[in-house]
Amino acid sequence: MSENAPTAVADPLSPEAVKRPPPHVIVLFGATGDLAKRKLLPGLIHLLNADLLPEEVRIVGTSTSVLDDEEFRSLACAAITEFGKEDLVGDSWERFSELLSFATSGEEGDSGAVLAGRVREAEEEVGGEAQLLHFLSVPPAAAPSIVRELGANGLHENARIIMEKPFGTDLESARALNEEIHSVFAENQVFRIDHFLGKEAVQNILALRFANGLFEPIWNREHVSSVQIDVPETLDVGTRAGFYEKTGAFRDMVVTHLFQVLGYLAMEPPTSLRAKTLGDEKVKVFEALRPLDPEYVVRGQYEGYREIDGVAGDSDTETFVALRANVDNWRWQGVPFFLRTGKCLAEGKRVVTIMLREPALRMFPQSAGVHHHEHPNALVFDLGDPGSITAEFMAKQPGATMALGPARMTFSYDTSFEAANQLEAYERLIHDAMTGDHTLFTRADGIERLWEVAEPLLDAPPPVEPYAGGSWGPESAAELTPWNLAEEEEE
Amino acid sequence: MSENAPTAVADPLSPEAVKRPPPHVIVLFGATGDLAKRKLLPGLIHLLNADLLPEEVRIVGTSTSVLDDEEFRSLACAAITEFGKEDLVGDSWERFSELLSFATSGEEGDSGAVLAGRVREAEEEVGGEAQLLHFLSVPPAAAPSIVRELGANGLHENARIIMEKPFGTDLESARALNEEIHSVFAENQVFRIDHFLGKEAVQNILALRFANGLFEPIWNREHVSSVQIDVPETLDVGTRAGFYEKTGAFRDMVVTHLFQVLGYLAMEPPTSLRAKTLGDEKVKVFEALRPLDPEYVVRGQYEGYREIDGVAGDSDTETFVALRANVDNWRWQGVPFFLRTGKCLAEGKRVVTIMLREPALRMFPQSAGVHHHEHPNALVFDLGDPGSITAEFMAKQPGATMALGPARMTFSYDTSFEAANQLEAYERLIHDAMTGDHTLFTRADGIERLWEVAEPLLDAPPPVEPYAGGSWGPESAAELTPWNLAEEEEE
Repeated sequence: MSENAPTAVADPLSPEAVKRPPPHVIVLFGATGDLAKRKLLPGLIHLLNADLLPEEVRIVGTSTSVLDDEEFRSLACAAITEFGKEDLVGDSWERFSELLSFATSGEEGDSGAVLAGRVREAEEEVGGEAQLLHFLSVPPAAAPSIVRELGANGLHENARIIMEKPFGTDLESARALNEEIHSVFAENQVFRIDHFLGKEAVQNILALRFANGLFEPIWNREHVSSVQIDVPETLDVGTRAGFYEKTGAFRDMVVTHLFQVLGYLAMEPPTSLRAKTLGDEKVKVFEALRPLDPEYVVRGQYEGYREIDGVAGDSDTETFVALRANVDNWRWQGVPFFLRTGKCLAEGKRVVTIMLREPALRMFPQSAGVHHHEHPNALVFDLGDPGSITAEFMAKQPGATMALGPARMTFSYDTSFEAANQLEAYERLIHDAMTGDHTLFTRADGIERLWEVAEPLLDAPPPVEPYAGGSWGPESAAELTPWNLAEEEEE
Repeated sequence: MSENAPTAVADPLSPEAVKRPPPHVIVLFGATGDLAKRKLLPGLIHLLNADLLPEEVRIVGTSTSVLDDEEFRSLACAAITEFGKEDLVGDSWERFSELLSFATSGEEGDSGAVLAGRVREAEEEVGGEAQLLHFLSVPPAAAPSIVRELGANGLHENARIIMEKPFGTDLESARALNEEIHSVFAENQVFRIDHFLGKEAVQNILALRFANGLFEPIWNREHVSSVQIDVPETLDVGTRAGFYEKTGAFRDMVVTHLFQVLGYLAMEPPTSLRAKTLGDEKVKVFEALRPLDPEYVVRGQYEGYREIDGVAGDSDTETFVALRANVDNWRWQGVPFFLRTGKCLAEGKRVVTIMLREPALRMFPQSAGVHHHEHPNALVFDLGDPGSITAEFMAKQPGATMALGPARMTFSYDTSFEAANQLEAYERLIHDAMTGDHTLFTRADGIERLWEVAEPLLDAPPPVEPYAGGSWGPESAAELTPWNLAEEEEE
């Protein structure tokens, strides 16, 4: 394991943190692939325009494609023109293109030496003191050999590595992958992407909970009856059938993204907002997560999924999953966390609902129209971009009688704040990694614990139930929801 | 004391309560006066149009004016035309005018017999089973003799009496007035108007607090740092100088209205929303109110007040008062209640602000811009018509850094509910009294306790301090506010 991990970490929270990172050489693995063209190259030029790239920086692309520097620049120019959100190939193109070079990798006999040579050249160009940032935009199977080659060629020193999910498919494979990485990189050099929650949404949750006296007092089992994390998608698996068939909704979404959201929602107040303290609190939540009980998991598969090219005719892969999780600690004991996500559903959104316990309603006559099961008190966090918060409550309807009706107040980020300095998810991720901010990245211990929590479900998954596209999933999923549970408990 | 108080009280909270009251004879004392013309007569015809008057009803006006029935009807028609909010003198005028009759009172030798005769006639017209409702729209000094005459002529039986404020000017006079009233009427026959809070606003506060799990958990000393009740007015004393000079802002507003608001805000959950249980809880708050300390009272007088006709050149009457009250019970110990009202101020509104305690902000760097004293967390209740609720909190500003900014979410009654069946304050009061609903009226025990609380201030009032019209009152009033107190405590 290398001990050469960068140690100077900027305070990611202070305004001064929005500064230029130190000199860098960025190495893009998979530089001619889809993600590079759609997100990474347009993102990098946008960072350049926003003065958020280092003053001294070079970008070395690499892939198995045989290209020279000029051909890579043409590819980058075409990609930026096609996928950049604004006209980025203007004045800054000249500057940007000069940063780019390319190394073809994987040619016979090469074990990373060609790339290493290009990286060294680039280091000299920026002045010899460059940090390295390796962005692995490659299939999971390709990652271990790249990690080994980086180590073999000394490119792990003074370097950070960004890795895309998935991080294994179960506890065993995740452990093996982490071991492989740790044989070359220290944990604090590793940036595992989980960008489902943009930094904005994560920090919004943290700011609301911990900068206010309004929300945190009710943020516990005494006042919360259940927490729902809903990420329905309207899209089908599209062209990702090959990947999806091996992965499914649980591995693709829950064990990564939805559990991460749960971690931020359920955590105890951290002593600071730095990645280390945040990560510690998140992992404590994961440690308190009860291993999943398959009896409280509904797996669904949308009708037509098995007809897709690349999907088995008797596929057991779930395209929908709803489950009940439990955080067995002092704050959350007895409060179910309902997680739900899937493809081909009625609506696409990212919503967290904090449902509050029913108050003593004795003083309100039945005729006042208090039907708590229909209109529970709730705090609803829309984690979309720009996002919003809604408080749902009961208010008196104007008029001579005490008739109550559902009421709401909403805070919307876009109407409340001027959009300023907005970065796209990948732009932010690259910038965060350059400044050493792990906030949006996941940690080995957390990931391994989540696979541990998932194990009972992976060992004995309930059979998939079909559901119609455009629906809300299998009917049995509804039986997991709080209202039904409340009725059950009353019986 | 009469034992003939009506006992059948409709459930004021059920939708069925919006029904026609039983047969009534309404007696308007001061029927040719200003309030009758501006509010009571237009209100009564509006109630008729809304089918909220009894099917069998008569209205007997009385005053010292010498009028016959026809002249009174003409006066009513003119008043309704001038002051009615809509065209009320249409189809319904014919019906309404037939309900009206008039008795001149106070003529030599008469001790209520003339009026009693007209009331008995009216009773016969409605079928002999009428309840009586006496509305005393007369100067305070005239009330005792009217009460005695009603008793002497048997008009206290099966009757209710509505009395306007003020109820005395100190503890002694309030006790004397209550004794006088109770020598004729039972307490539950007496309806003392305190209509500052329309029923709507009162019931809104109660519905929000007690029908929701969202607000009540923070409604206590653990989470609330202070409560502010602000009723600034832009108006000067106008033509009421004679009355005002003897009364002042404290007696006119605080000891009546603002303390009533405080009662609803601070009360423990009542077992029901009926007037009796609500009244009990409100009186418990008043009992826990610490007698006022003149050291925490600022009295102000706007510049120019002493030049008004009817005001003494060296007047010590306050046109502004700000004070710190304390509710010494388990829920509110240590939480100051700041009450403020006055004439000729910068703005006119009726606002309650629940200020929340500062959370532990250690995790947010100073540079995050958390300045709690400037932007405290607060729940703001605008008690105006239609009213609104705003939650003020801190949210993350969009962008790369953890900079916080003040955010808010608002619920507004008018955009959230359709206005339905809205009654003006006096219309509602008359209807409530006819159906026996005491919710908006005050009780003898509560009023006497409030005068007791006020006594130290009345005994040793601090001198009035001048303030400029259109300002926020004397500068020393600001020293009472929570921010200044917080700074003081920090020193």
